[in-house]
Amino acid sequence: MTPPSRQALVPFVSVDHMMQLVHHVGIEPLLVELADAIEADFRRWPDFDKTPRVASHSDIGVIELMPTSDGQHYGFKYVNGHPGNMRQGLQTVTAFGVLADVATGYPLLLSEMTILTALRTAATSAMAARWLAPHDSRVMAMIGNGAQAEFQALAFKAICGIAEVRLYDIDPAATAKCVANLAGRGLRVVPCASAEEAILGAQIVTTCTADKQYATILSDNMVGAGVHLNAVGGDCPGKTELHRDILLRAGIFVEYPPQTRVEGEIQQLDPDHAVTELWQVIAGHVPGRTRADQVTLFDSVGFAIEDFSALRHIHKRLQGTGLFLDLDMIADPDDPRDLFGMLCRAAPRQDAA
Amino acid sequence: MTPPSRQALVPFVSVDHMMQLVHHVGIEPLLVELADAIEADFRRWPDFDKTPRVASHSDIGVIELMPTSDGQHYGFKYVNGHPGNMRQGLQTVTAFGVLADVATGYPLLLSEMTILTALRTAATSAMAARWLAPHDSRVMAMIGNGAQAEFQALAFKAICGIAEVRLYDIDPAATAKCVANLAGRGLRVVPCASAEEAILGAQIVTTCTADKQYATILSDNMVGAGVHLNAVGGDCPGKTELHRDILLRAGIFVEYPPQTRVEGEIQQLDPDHAVTELWQVIAGHVPGRTRADQVTLFDSVGFAIEDFSALRHIHKRLQGTGLFLDLDMIADPDDPRDLFGMLCRAAPRQDAA
Repeated sequence: MTPPSRQALVPFVSVDHMMQLVHHVGIEPLLVELADAIEADFRRWPDFDKTPRVASHSDIGVIELMPTSDGQHYGFKYVNGHPGNMRQGLQTVTAFGVLADVATGYPLLLSEMTILTALRTAATSAMAARWLAPHDSRVMAMIGNGAQAEFQALAFKAICGIAEVRLYDIDPAATAKCVANLAGRGLRVVPCASAEEAILGAQIVTTCTADKQYATILSDNMVGAGVHLNAVGGDCPGKTELHRDILLRAGIFVEYPPQTRVEGEIQQLDPDHAVTELWQVIAGHVPGRTRADQVTLFDSVGFAIEDFSALRHIHKRLQGTGLFLDLDMIADPDDPRDLFGMLCRAAPRQDAA
Repeated sequence: MTPPSRQALVPFVSVDHMMQLVHHVGIEPLLVELADAIEADFRRWPDFDKTPRVASHSDIGVIELMPTSDGQHYGFKYVNGHPGNMRQGLQTVTAFGVLADVATGYPLLLSEMTILTALRTAATSAMAARWLAPHDSRVMAMIGNGAQAEFQALAFKAICGIAEVRLYDIDPAATAKCVANLAGRGLRVVPCASAEEAILGAQIVTTCTADKQYATILSDNMVGAGVHLNAVGGDCPGKTELHRDILLRAGIFVEYPPQTRVEGEIQQLDPDHAVTELWQVIAGHVPGRTRADQVTLFDSVGFAIEDFSALRHIHKRLQGTGLFLDLDMIADPDDPRDLFGMLCRAAPRQDAA
């Protein structure tokens, strides 16, 4: 049998490859690069085919496909959300994704995206804060200290200059894990006994909790003037983190309204409540934060373009590293009309007709 | 570093594995098994989450995601359609797919699907003909002798008892390829110089051409009473193969109307023109062919459930064969909340903080 041609091979980035790539580049530099890549794609937002994620819901979770294209590349992510997985020692969220060439439809890259999603989510949050948070922000409260927490902390350090993170989780073990993981990384890390304590002196409050229910992680009186809220955890129907009254007095910035109206904090508001698309701020069409005492909210649910940017950046960053495995994923007959002939020629000798 | 656990590994069926599996089972037996698996899933059609495919169109092609779920398993296929690819020696259609566990959202299988799509498309066509074609059908005309042709011929032999295929293609080289590939497989193979010649004496006419345009492969006067039409090639907006007048006098059977109205032959008809869902025939709710002189049409565009059935069958058939490669695709920290810790522990010694 002839070995498959270059076109038929798709580079696959495994979990181990991705971890090696992160260390090769450095976690903070990679977060900065991803934030820049995502920001550049938000700036050319109208170039993209956009659609809300395609979700398949069950009683205990959801499996989603998140596709987008800029006319040159096409990307999609497969991602699940199963809050009960943790009880079986499994990840709540796992993901993988594909980048493809629009001109031929051939895949260019298959990659794990559990780690990459953690990185891109944190990079997106910090990128948004660069446009929305008070410019002198040095202290961030992190409410919810699960799998995303350290990534958020380092992204805000590297991208926004945060020097202190104040941690709170209903489970002290999660906070302890986070404290240990962030030790020696140049951040002042303060574990707190309550959400109220965590937000003391914070210019930025990040909420990143996991329960699928209408939760009130922050009540109205906890949010002072001028604070920037980065609401990461509310990302599906029925899952919110902020009291509705906070939303009513905040300047609200979102990724893609048709998706955020269903999945974000603003599912609690009227469907015509005014929100600003973050890309419009980045493209210079509308202002971000307008007053020092304004409460700004990035109601983040995660959008396909962020995954697209991340996949494209990883595809670029992979060159020369060897941190991938070529997969024989695309059938590649010498004559494209002769798929059947290729199949026949692959028959073991004794079975040949 | 600890090696990833079993949960984190996803079996990958490469193109070469798939070809070996096909020969291990036998092409015709596998086509029969796939037809039975697809038929069984059509019979329980209401169990499935159904959505038209999610398409990203460009000037020169389309990339699509086709997801579905029966509440226990979730499957999706990535497939492109680029008619111009052939001129660069690339496949018009390539595909891969994933089967996942709805309970956890974890992928169970990643598989090439270029070959598997060719098999499932042929198996679906022949399965539909089992319900719709005249019972004594022995002769099939095959108009369009490209990559799908031999799969169709063998499926109709194995599943419907077709003994003679009459081949026609505007490109005689395609017909010659098809004749050579089908030699010695127990079919009488008759190359023809025109579509008119090909349909002589045929009870079943399969059209499977590739151009994206409103083509008239069959005109009205070519289709005699009692014939079953298997229209495979028309499968996207603007791509049809049959003259509208044929449709007006045929009993039309489709997979999923919301998709077929846009992509199938019936895009030429009023949006409320009566069509029958094939699954209703299989489930015994409505009759298939009602008269010996009825013209029946299976207006096939390919639906996600067929891919789901094929993936599930391959997943079952794979057991014990070793015809797969385990991919480290799912991040698997010991503590699911400690994704960052897993990443840190993977750091090369010299970089460790």
